[in-house]
Amino acid sequence: MFATEDNITDLAVRRWGTADTPRLAELMTGLVQHLHDFAREVRLTEDEWMAAMQWLTRTGQISDEKREEFILASDVLGLSMLVVQMNHHFQDAATPATVLGPFHIDGSPSVPYGHDMSDGIEGVPFFVTGQVTSVDGTPISGAVLDVWQADADGLYESQIGELDEARLRAKYVTGEDGTFCVRSIVPLGYSIPMDGTVGDLISRTDIGHFRPAHIHFLLEEDGYERLVTHIFEEGTRYIESDVVFGTKEALITPFTAHEGGPAPDGTSLDRPFVTAEFDFVLQPS
Amino acid sequence: MFATEDNITDLAVRRWGTADTPRLAELMTGLVQHLHDFAREVRLTEDEWMAAMQWLTRTGQISDEKREEFILASDVLGLSMLVVQMNHHFQDAATPATVLGPFHIDGSPSVPYGHDMSDGIEGVPFFVTGQVTSVDGTPISGAVLDVWQADADGLYESQIGELDEARLRAKYVTGEDGTFCVRSIVPLGYSIPMDGTVGDLISRTDIGHFRPAHIHFLLEEDGYERLVTHIFEEGTRYIESDVVFGTKEALITPFTAHEGGPAPDGTSLDRPFVTAEFDFVLQPS
Ligand SMILES: [Fe+2]
Ligand SMILES: [Fe+2]
Repeated sequence: MFATEDNITDLAVRRWGTADTPRLAELMTGLVQHLHDFAREVRLTEDEWMAAMQWLTRTGQISDEKREEFILASDVLGLSMLVVQMNHHFQDAATPATVLGPFHIDGSPSVPYGHDMSDGIEGVPFFVTGQVTSVDGTPISGAVLDVWQADADGLYESQIGELDEARLRAKYVTGEDGTFCVRSIVPLGYSIPMDGTVGDLISRTDIGHFRPAHIHFLLEEDGYERLVTHIFEEGTRYIESDVVFGTKEALITPFTAHEGGPAPDGTSLDRPFVTAEFDFVLQPS
Repeated sequence: MFATEDNITDLAVRRWGTADTPRLAELMTGLVQHLHDFAREVRLTEDEWMAAMQWLTRTGQISDEKREEFILASDVLGLSMLVVQMNHHFQDAATPATVLGPFHIDGSPSVPYGHDMSDGIEGVPFFVTGQVTSVDGTPISGAVLDVWQADADGLYESQIGELDEARLRAKYVTGEDGTFCVRSIVPLGYSIPMDGTVGDLISRTDIGHFRPAHIHFLLEEDGYERLVTHIFEEGTRYIESDVVFGTKEALITPFTAHEGGPAPDGTSLDRPFVTAEFDFVLQPS
């Protein structure tokens, strides 16, 4: 049977329904159906179709080891956060998940309690302390917190390129009582990269292209759901307009400024620093 | 307001609705809605989402001047042919449009009636003759037929790369009576490129990855709708299973074999050749 405007969607759905696993068939037929529904609904023109093909091609071509433009596109369209939420139906007591983002690097070095992961990078000293527990309050000892953040220019290590040592990222381990102490620099809000195809689109809207100040955490512990999350600064700029939809009430915590003196890592600082307290509550798997 | 699984689609639609033209707002909000609907319907997992991001990135990265993998993806998903059909509601009497495909090259040389565009490339001589008319039967003189086709290996010039001269492509002009005569070689069915991301997907289905034998035409004439189309060989292999959904009843015509002798260009051939007759009927714009 030859394709017409009326039957082509059914023909394409039938073809892609022959995929070699039921799940791939489900994904591909759903994709074909929604792609066609979209094109029909907006009466996509040939020029618009061609512009879309070129946009997709350029989006792939500016991606590399330092840049994941399709993930960024998914983030700003709200798709990433939708997928995160669909796949992590935690109990209310558990710390909610948010987007991984494109900047996580595997294999960060394990460091001791209170270690300064900023390692000389400019910024106000920042301490995050807290406890990792199960939803019933039981402390989890030996839990690994994989932490990463941007520098004062909003850049992550993966955006800067190959370095000799880890930059603003480290793995901390909780003690017997489940507590941890991260030392770093105060995170700042930052703009997503605006010099690519996602920036081109965003700049044709009123959408703010900033993320509120945050620090990333990934917790993996046997017997618990993997938790990918952030901590956000209470009251910080852009907290209501996170361009990637990542903010959640339960992830916001006050950042407290200190003039100097005793710090959470047991040392004493002769300059201002900032502290935050946050307990991570893991959902048993 | 912070995003939840329930409200994130509305939030994203509202944001992208701020685009700087009503049409871009319509396109982006429709895209967000359908993308989210798809993800929700199939309950997209994080691993599947990541595989999709990687597939998209690789699809852009293997595209270049010789290769348009996203257009190929759109073709095999039936999207290209849907868009063609939505945008060309011709009268029944007019020759229908089909996909442009990724292999058209601008600026083919203008050649006289009966010119051999195969220029020594191996194959059985092939003549296409006919008339270009308006839907009311009026012959259109001076109409330009931009013609291109694959060689015996299924390769188009754009797949081979930069050449000194045009290869299996030329522009013919109709005479006073609207007639034309194209000389080339007999086109063969061919496989779409299977060594890329589209091939990866197709090979996980029962979908045939071939196109039936065809030759491409593009007709542009003042006062008429631009016509992008093919002629297909009647009864040829894959005619019922064109991987890009491009076949149409009205574009199929018999290819007649001759043992030699007088040919449509007025010459006489001492070897076998093939002829096809096809009249192009243009829709006034
Ligand atoms: Fe971040
Ligand atoms: Fe073709």
